[in-house]
Amino acid sequence: MSANGEQNLEKGNQEYAASFTQGHLALPPSHKYAVLTCMDARIDPAAAFGIPLGAAHVIRNAGASARDAFRSIVISQQLLGTTEVLVVKHTGCGMLTFDNETAKGLVKKNKGEAAAKEVEDLDFLTFPDLEAEVKKDVEWLQSRAVEEGIRFTGWVYEVETGKARKVV
Amino acid sequence: MSANGEQNLEKGNQEYAASFTQGHLALPPSHKYAVLTCMDARIDPAAAFGIPLGAAHVIRNAGASARDAFRSIVISQQLLGTTEVLVVKHTGCGMLTFDNETAKGLVKKNKGEAAAKEVEDLDFLTFPDLEAEVKKDVEWLQSRAVEEGIRFTGWVYEVETGKARKVV
Repeated sequence: MSANGEQNLEKGNQEYAASFTQGHLALPPSHKYAVLTCMDARIDPAAAFGIPLGAAHVIRNAGASARDAFRSIVISQQLLGTTEVLVVKHTGCGMLTFDNETAKGLVKKNKGEAAAKEVEDLDFLTFPDLEAEVKKDVEWLQSRAVEEGIRFTGWVYEVETGKARKVV
Repeated sequence: MSANGEQNLEKGNQEYAASFTQGHLALPPSHKYAVLTCMDARIDPAAAFGIPLGAAHVIRNAGASARDAFRSIVISQQLLGTTEVLVVKHTGCGMLTFDNETAKGLVKKNKGEAAAKEVEDLDFLTFPDLEAEVKKDVEWLQSRAVEEGIRFTGWVYEVETGKARKVV
């Protein structure tokens, strides 16, 4: 039997493909920017951040971490010509609710020693303050030599209201 | 003056927030799965993969790399209870078109020595064969002790047709 995700993909994609008309879009993003946001299930970047299909790279990870996204950001700019990055973190983020010690403890308790070993050196990149973290990530990116000439802005998206506001 | 991305976000979000009714959704994904796909501008996961808002984590990076997404995948499962991962790579992926040497050469040429130094140890995680890479990533995840009990499937999404097909 198919699981939840597989069923959603098969059904959803059948409908999507049936009316798909955008097969002509080019590889490089037409609006030359990238959005970095969280993997959180409550965020639909295309809809919530007004991104037309083909317009922008969308990078997503736990917490919208700039360090974690560094490889993708460099590729977006150096190989595919984007010149602007929007960093969008959000209210109610899971990364505000735990720390490395908690995460590693959970893995050990639930999955055992071999699993704990696999995440031993992993930095889960949690953070205690949302707006401060948006600023820190934007500043970190701005301080990279490879990011010279790129435009950065930082935002908070409210999962309770659907509103995004600029922080920096 | 606002740049492209900023303008899209401001205008798009104003419309989105004006009719937003989903502020009640919970942090853990309601359908308990995660989708890992590429940052490519031509992919709209919610629409193309049938993901209702709040249902699934969506992780995106250059090439839909499982290694690059490992931190997010572990958090998705250990902290937020997901039990299924769909790995979706796509036709026409930029990661099929260059290698580490090319990328590092470009950074050095365009951005100089200090920038080259910053990406010196970076593995850009490019790959030469699409379907083989889907299988490799699924196998890599399946071989982690921390991923025991998780259901994995691997897919290719065709940017030319809007169709997704299961590979593994």
